[in-house]
Amino acid sequence: MFGRIDHIGVAVESIDASIGLYRDSFEMAEQHRETVEEQGVKAVLLEVGEGHVELIEPLSPESGVAKFIERYGEGMHHVAYQTDDIDSALEKVRAAGLRLIDEEPRAGIRGSRVAFLHPKATGGVLTELVEPAH
Amino acid sequence: MFGRIDHIGVAVESIDASIGLYRDSFEMAEQHRETVEEQGVKAVLLEVGEGHVELIEPLSPESGVAKFIERYGEGMHHVAYQTDDIDSALEKVRAAGLRLIDEEPRAGIRGSRVAFLHPKATGGVLTELVEPAH
Repeated sequence: MFGRIDHIGVAVESIDASIGLYRDSFEMAEQHRETVEEQGVKAVLLEVGEGHVELIEPLSPESGVAKFIERYGEGMHHVAYQTDDIDSALEKVRAAGLRLIDEEPRAGIRGSRVAFLHPKATGGVLTELVEPAH
Repeated sequence: MFGRIDHIGVAVESIDASIGLYRDSFEMAEQHRETVEEQGVKAVLLEVGEGHVELIEPLSPESGVAKFIERYGEGMHHVAYQTDDIDSALEKVRAAGLRLIDEEPRAGIRGSRVAFLHPKATGGVLTELVEPAH
């Protein structure tokens, strides 16, 4: 069902302040930057093998990521699993009775299609399915 | 420096209660089980591509993982990056001035060598370096 861990999402107050750790100390190449308005974040993808670290910085205090940081502090925010067929994967998790945040796939970063499962259905782990752009 | 995201570690109260999500709903094959006494956990590795989800269950209320669950609830606990040469990787992060939990690599699950960085040095992300058994 999943080909790999596509990325981990890391909530940060400031990409500028945080990226040095990954780019310089961990030697991960910066691959992509994007503002994802509908999720209320600026995001950067850093390369680690076929996967990524995604740093996400809230655009405003109303952003879900801002509220996450307020509650838990900066840190791991979600994990994303790669699938070649998000419609089928989403249908399987729906059929398994798992509570969804996104009933249908929606546009994600870099032309991907994504859907989030509800952390109450996944033992507190905010879980994203990602079908990368083809 | 890192070849891939080796695994994400997920803190759970009970592996028995949690594994169904990953094994049945997410169709990840169970690959390995081990009790890691020195870390105070039972652990299961589930396969996702070349990487893993590691479910970790505390052996006692004194376990660091038990305290994590008490404070934050069940959820993502750490991320581990794979390296072929943990001594060199650890020397690099030490030279970068990053605070370490493990000054030297120690024995990890399944014959690996591992070292944890301190989350205060990594923006709240408990980060593990893993050199798998050869």
